[in-house]
Amino acid sequence: MSVEQHRREVEALLWPPFAGRGTDRVALADALDRVLSADLLAPVDLPSFRSSQMDGYAVRSADVAPATDGAPVVLPVVAEVPAGPGTPAALAPGTVARIMTGAVVPEGSDAVVPVEDTDAVRFGAYPAGPARGAVGTHVGVLAPRAAGEFVRDVGSDVRGGDLVLPAGTLLGPHHLAAAASCGVASLDVRARVRVAVVSTGTEVVEPGRAAATGQVYDANLHGLAAAARRAGADVVLTGRTGDDPRELAALLARAAEEADLVLTSGGVSQGAYEVVKDTLGDGVTFRSVAMQPGGPQGFGTYEGTPILTFPGNPVSAQVSFVVFARPVLERAAGRPAREVETRTVTGAIDSPPTKQQMLRGRLGPGGTVEVVGGAGSHLVATMAAADALVEVPEDVGRVEAGESVRVVRL
Amino acid sequence: MSVEQHRREVEALLWPPFAGRGTDRVALADALDRVLSADLLAPVDLPSFRSSQMDGYAVRSADVAPATDGAPVVLPVVAEVPAGPGTPAALAPGTVARIMTGAVVPEGSDAVVPVEDTDAVRFGAYPAGPARGAVGTHVGVLAPRAAGEFVRDVGSDVRGGDLVLPAGTLLGPHHLAAAASCGVASLDVRARVRVAVVSTGTEVVEPGRAAATGQVYDANLHGLAAAARRAGADVVLTGRTGDDPRELAALLARAAEEADLVLTSGGVSQGAYEVVKDTLGDGVTFRSVAMQPGGPQGFGTYEGTPILTFPGNPVSAQVSFVVFARPVLERAAGRPAREVETRTVTGAIDSPPTKQQMLRGRLGPGGTVEVVGGAGSHLVATMAAADALVEVPEDVGRVEAGESVRVVRL
Repeated sequence: MSVEQHRREVEALLWPPFAGRGTDRVALADALDRVLSADLLAPVDLPSFRSSQMDGYAVRSADVAPATDGAPVVLPVVAEVPAGPGTPAALAPGTVARIMTGAVVPEGSDAVVPVEDTDAVRFGAYPAGPARGAVGTHVGVLAPRAAGEFVRDVGSDVRGGDLVLPAGTLLGPHHLAAAASCGVASLDVRARVRVAVVSTGTEVVEPGRAAATGQVYDANLHGLAAAARRAGADVVLTGRTGDDPRELAALLARAAEEADLVLTSGGVSQGAYEVVKDTLGDGVTFRSVAMQPGGPQGFGTYEGTPILTFPGNPVSAQVSFVVFARPVLERAAGRPAREVETRTVTGAIDSPPTKQQMLRGRLGPGGTVEVVGGAGSHLVATMAAADALVEVPEDVGRVEAGESVRVVRL
Repeated sequence: MSVEQHRREVEALLWPPFAGRGTDRVALADALDRVLSADLLAPVDLPSFRSSQMDGYAVRSADVAPATDGAPVVLPVVAEVPAGPGTPAALAPGTVARIMTGAVVPEGSDAVVPVEDTDAVRFGAYPAGPARGAVGTHVGVLAPRAAGEFVRDVGSDVRGGDLVLPAGTLLGPHHLAAAASCGVASLDVRARVRVAVVSTGTEVVEPGRAAATGQVYDANLHGLAAAARRAGADVVLTGRTGDDPRELAALLARAAEEADLVLTSGGVSQGAYEVVKDTLGDGVTFRSVAMQPGGPQGFGTYEGTPILTFPGNPVSAQVSFVVFARPVLERAAGRPAREVETRTVTGAIDSPPTKQQMLRGRLGPGGTVEVVGGAGSHLVATMAAADALVEVPEDVGRVEAGESVRVVRL
């Protein structure tokens, strides 16, 4: 079974339930990196009132029409309008109001003259005492203003009912800022894919505990949970069992109840004690995929919930996740599909020509990648040094230094 | 003041305290996306015991030396060694033990013969009853094995004391898997930069509340907090005040106490009521940066804590964050520096030649970018549609369609 064929079948299994999952309503503070599930329409016009675009003077454009730099129109300053709540008094003809950016433009005025285009003492110097341009004094307007200039009209940014954010938007800070600007306090987002991670084997123990001879530390519970989180999923359950099928069945039943996807590690190869194989029923297909590491794969459902069974070796489990689970989880999380990336290898690679190799690699300068460590599947320390997987296709026995290979970033 | 000059000064202000912040010890489950603060050395050898690399038979290599496909060496199977805790009995000369992948290789044996290289009934068919190759029967070994073959020696993956993860590693799933494999349950990571976000102005109200005429919804509290989180910081405080300097001073004092960086929005332009300017003391420099939007900038310290003051307009605040705060926060979070990205614009851009424009753009196919909306700084809806900022330098008045521009991804 080729890697590509297995990947397609896994996607066909997972995508329909992932696509059909429900919606959460979340507060803005919790909406970062979630995916909008419905179009967000502006509930109101923005701005919702006529708003000054500048610090300056609200005027009637007709009053200042004759103004020139040499012959300013001098008018009395009868009011001051700061930004903030409240409706200022209407402006009488032949008068002006000092106004701040964002403040309500009074009825009766139809333009704002920026302070730079007047002979007022600049606001920066205020409030050093009554000065030309302050309330109770006069101000000279040095240039005419057409009706509407420096006035942000109601709805000029967005009209109530306009589309602000389309369904499917992966919410970033500026999207949340836009929603907040519209007065929206919570958003409907796609429910995250809930993942359960189950690791198996009497030989695995939790890091931090004492390990007896014959025991190894479990890298998969934390490694697969972290991988699922990074792919945008919500890890709702992690658990570990030995080789007792009843214990595993009980854990899987809980996992199938709580999660949209169950990932297991271990117990799927050709040995005599393969607890995952022994426990899972007809709903799961076990097969050998032409990939190294990560050949023994299983997929199907357990009590109606999709399940992928990965090999127990930590490197195999990580590679299995990256190749088979990550693409569909990232798609469900609204992330753009990763583009195929090719790089040139810094050294020759020999590879068995019957399996697709997924070697550990380190990205280098100038579009290069260096293979680190060997092909062995136990080299966790090498995995730690890698930032990509280097793909050598099934039918290729040798790649020469300088040739192109596909890489998948970790 | 050029954008680049201001950015450099902000970095010089922020980087030394960010670089000098302390260390957190976190459990593996909380370590994803954190930055390792010290080299992680393997505490033990891996594997910690001689471990079988295959399902097969533990043998003495001397016993099977004469084996060929035509003349197998037939030996009694005296024991079975599953993976799991415990030390198996030593193997007597002239006998073999059935062994599973990952199990302890018994003393007295020095190689493992994969089941494929024997005449045993394949393990997949077991336990259908005693069969050739099971304990108490015999097995024929079809090929010789050199000492050490398919035996993973103690320390062959990593030696106790070897470097597993260097300080500075941005911890991904495979790094956590590697640490877990070594039995490490918690890691020392750099403390996250703690950010406080303070928005100001009597005109701003929380989304979801009723807004009176003259009031606008606050986009910055949520927008800047989300931006800081996405840049890898920990947002420890958010607060909003009106135009009362005493109220703001009290909030800033709390923010300076709890955070490594205080971000404010609003109250920094040339108007008469500029609460941030009025409140902050000599520790903060206010200046006009030749950038649009986001010209009015302030930076310095408040009660010893670095502070950046951004303009209150939501688009200006987001642009200010992306240009001045994000690079140093991402650096502190261990992220690689963003590479300069250039794209060709799909249409001509006119730009005032005295300020660097940061226009909203949408990335398109074939390395293009399209400018969305105008240069006005209030167009939050346009911001929502953007996925990048398009940079038009200070001294450029017009960019023709098809020319290259620098873009900064949002």
